[in-house]
Amino acid sequence: MIRLQSYVADRFVDGTAAGRSFVDPTTGAVLGTIDSTGVDCADALHHARTVGGPALAAMSFAARGALLGAIADALQARRDDWMEIARKNSGNTTRDASVDVDGGIATLKYYARLAKGLGDTRMLIEPGADRLAKGPFEARHVWTTRPGAAIFINAFNFPSWGLWEKVAVAIVAGMPIVAKPASGTAWLAEAMVRAVVAAGVLPAGVLSLVCGSAEGLLDAVEPFDCIAFTGSAETGRMIRAHPAVLAANPRLGIEADSVNTALLAPSATPEAAAFERLVEQALAAVSVKAGQLCTNIRRILVPAGVEDAFVATLATRIDDLVVGDPALAEVTVGPLVDEKQLRAAFAGLAALAPETRTVRGGGIPATVVGADTAQGAFLAPTLLVADTGAVLSAVHDVEVFGPVVTVIPYATLDEAVDLAARGEGSLAASIYADGAEEAATIAARLAPLHGRVLVVDAEVGRGHTGHSIVMPQCVHGGPGRAGGGEELGGLRGLRFFMQRTAIQGSPTMLADLAAKATETSL
Amino acid sequence: MIRLQSYVADRFVDGTAAGRSFVDPTTGAVLGTIDSTGVDCADALHHARTVGGPALAAMSFAARGALLGAIADALQARRDDWMEIARKNSGNTTRDASVDVDGGIATLKYYARLAKGLGDTRMLIEPGADRLAKGPFEARHVWTTRPGAAIFINAFNFPSWGLWEKVAVAIVAGMPIVAKPASGTAWLAEAMVRAVVAAGVLPAGVLSLVCGSAEGLLDAVEPFDCIAFTGSAETGRMIRAHPAVLAANPRLGIEADSVNTALLAPSATPEAAAFERLVEQALAAVSVKAGQLCTNIRRILVPAGVEDAFVATLATRIDDLVVGDPALAEVTVGPLVDEKQLRAAFAGLAALAPETRTVRGGGIPATVVGADTAQGAFLAPTLLVADTGAVLSAVHDVEVFGPVVTVIPYATLDEAVDLAARGEGSLAASIYADGAEEAATIAARLAPLHGRVLVVDAEVGRGHTGHSIVMPQCVHGGPGRAGGGEELGGLRGLRFFMQRTAIQGSPTMLADLAAKATETSL
Repeated sequence: MIRLQSYVADRFVDGTAAGRSFVDPTTGAVLGTIDSTGVDCADALHHARTVGGPALAAMSFAARGALLGAIADALQARRDDWMEIARKNSGNTTRDASVDVDGGIATLKYYARLAKGLGDTRMLIEPGADRLAKGPFEARHVWTTRPGAAIFINAFNFPSWGLWEKVAVAIVAGMPIVAKPASGTAWLAEAMVRAVVAAGVLPAGVLSLVCGSAEGLLDAVEPFDCIAFTGSAETGRMIRAHPAVLAANPRLGIEADSVNTALLAPSATPEAAAFERLVEQALAAVSVKAGQLCTNIRRILVPAGVEDAFVATLATRIDDLVVGDPALAEVTVGPLVDEKQLRAAFAGLAALAPETRTVRGGGIPATVVGADTAQGAFLAPTLLVADTGAVLSAVHDVEVFGPVVTVIPYATLDEAVDLAARGEGSLAASIYADGAEEAATIAARLAPLHGRVLVVDAEVGRGHTGHSIVMPQCVHGGPGRAGGGEELGGLRGLRFFMQRTAIQGSPTMLADLAAKATETSL
Repeated sequence: MIRLQSYVADRFVDGTAAGRSFVDPTTGAVLGTIDSTGVDCADALHHARTVGGPALAAMSFAARGALLGAIADALQARRDDWMEIARKNSGNTTRDASVDVDGGIATLKYYARLAKGLGDTRMLIEPGADRLAKGPFEARHVWTTRPGAAIFINAFNFPSWGLWEKVAVAIVAGMPIVAKPASGTAWLAEAMVRAVVAAGVLPAGVLSLVCGSAEGLLDAVEPFDCIAFTGSAETGRMIRAHPAVLAANPRLGIEADSVNTALLAPSATPEAAAFERLVEQALAAVSVKAGQLCTNIRRILVPAGVEDAFVATLATRIDDLVVGDPALAEVTVGPLVDEKQLRAAFAGLAALAPETRTVRGGGIPATVVGADTAQGAFLAPTLLVADTGAVLSAVHDVEVFGPVVTVIPYATLDEAVDLAARGEGSLAASIYADGAEEAATIAARLAPLHGRVLVVDAEVGRGHTGHSIVMPQCVHGGPGRAGGGEELGGLRGLRFFMQRTAIQGSPTMLADLAAKATETSL
């Protein structure tokens, strides 16, 4: 039995209560326990602000980049261990685990390079100055590090990537971190932090991990802290309404429910390349990580005339998927992460039922390979079709966090855009259109509803990164229901951890300031 | 007696209740009443989203700029009327009224020019593309208009500027507006909107005004709306915790309490030019608009060795101020805006009393010119000095919203920065140092705590715009206690009303998109 510890104020500490257990979702077997009772969250944050903050403030952007590189190296050296933990505790296939493990390491390396490019300064300055008076008086805008701590409350589906993508940006920005992984899959995050600590590359106070409850962290939040939360809209609301959060007014970034859309262009026929490209992405949506990605396709909008062909084609491909023990090479779909998620998915399916008919899946699979459906948290890859004549409401509102997609036919592009908008703001959309011009027109219309739009035209073909994959070069986050946050996007991600300030003064003083800063926009 | 109306769904409508009265703060005389009972806020927002939004979406940036120019012209034509209302209802001197009235018109004209420069597009695209794959697959970032309405809940101290600076940016961004002025001084906002409506320049649904309660607006908020609030931290917390706001998760911008700092550099002596420059700004802080500016200097940090000289000099200048009826040319300090504000200021002074000694003012003036202190809401220009040995807490926490400053001595620059940080985030700081290099060093340290830092060195001399004046070229807003919002700052202000979206696709598609957009960073 594994017992996870918290790493706070540069020490590993144990919770004092029995805590909760975490499992192997393939077998239902208990792997270990996690608890943070008695862990002093206020002290952890104070230590981060007063020890970790100054340590990072003493380092240039380039030095912080070197630190990220060292973290990435320490993690890379034990990749096999992480892949195994991801399989055991998250039910990941090798492909699934790679998205989480290699995705995390790659994002660290990407930000290591970006930080190196910022050079030997600790401050950013935007290009251009505004003259404010007839005499020598101008304004420029600088970005400096907020003097607080970054609090990360992460989701269960990416214990590695979800931690390291945020840590990477915070460290470049100069902010120390106290992260809280989701308890059900915290093992990977805890083991990785243990390895990084053992590698001896972390300055004191820069990275802490609370394994257990986030409540103590919220209670101790201060005005210059930043809270980044990934998870359900309901928990997001709870954080926004938390008395300590309301009182301190820290910066708050939330990435929550998102009923993401894939859209087949009005011009597409079953013979179009775009048709096949969408089938591929829809298939990924009901297999990769068993559909447990915040960016996953949930709604598929297709022209009414091609609906039947699309549904038939996708159904056939779904029949080729193999659900079962992710340790087996032939398995393409693993279990959900635990019983609780399986129950939540069933509740979601029940909500969709009055508006949809089930073409494939919809419940526990008839057969799984190398596992027992009575023990594992398996959900069959599920293809739903919006019922003609049904009032569509739940299909736009309910995110079933599993391998479930709903196909919705549309008559005109205007109707398709309206349907997409019914999601009330999403993380990601994708558009499939052979012609670049048609694709660009649709992209401009979907843009305000989304944080990211993938456009697959004939020129792109198969050579894209996929609907669901978050690339560190691109902003990640969406408006409205998706939480309103924005992270990553290269240097753009630094905004969350830094303060933009207008500096008004003489050209000589501003030149002095600029000499100590790196010029860039975020 | 004046009766204010709301302008919603392109009609002026009356509240059905008696409502509350508003006064002339110089005499205490009731000027009129305001009430929004029965005004359909949900319909007003729906009309804005469905009529005003599409009207603006049909206009290019340049056309929106022309609209702002027409609004500015309509207002300019009746400047004398606005100055009179500002005097009667806000107790403004001519100088005070100009900050509000001319400031509003100038900001409209500034954004008219900026919008013209953006040309005939409706979308912005950031410079640069990121290659995401070996083949033809890249990412760019665009900014598009959020498909909602902008809700402005404004403060009493700037009924003109506070309305038009926000309207200007929202219209450039393409967002329709429903604004709610503070009831006590709504007359000016209502009269101005009436003049703009009468000028016939507003497309239907673009601008609405609710004169009365904001509650109905909050109840009807939707995910793509933006709420910008200026006022107390307490009301800001109430808005953040409002059930409809928690449920819909609109974008939220808050500008709240701010205990702003002016800092005389460690090197400054009473003979330094910087010393006199600070005296000038401190004097403005206890006279212009009777100190009722969110950006006003509240704390003055001076080196311990020059404290006595500074306090003595400032006290002498304060003795030259003339408090009284703002209609009189010799009067330099008008009343607070009403009895309620006067009472709040007294409560604030009581909170500061245990930590300070009073050098000038501190209560109702002994004499006022052309008015009666028993009727008008007069507060004497007040100079407090932090008591040696007192534990300083209230001086960093309590914003006395009137002509009140507190001088605090410091021993070292580190201590001065720590004292500034005790404000927990402010809108504006100013630094007075003859040498540019010393000034730049201090500016870099104060930057993360503030939205704007004015640096007055020998080169700038008197040729600056002042500690408290918000220039549209510079971002306005501050972290922490100051609310965390960011507005204005030239094109930077557009961010609040627009969505940034990563668009991934082929170079051909991205070139198509870029051809429909204007390239810029925000």
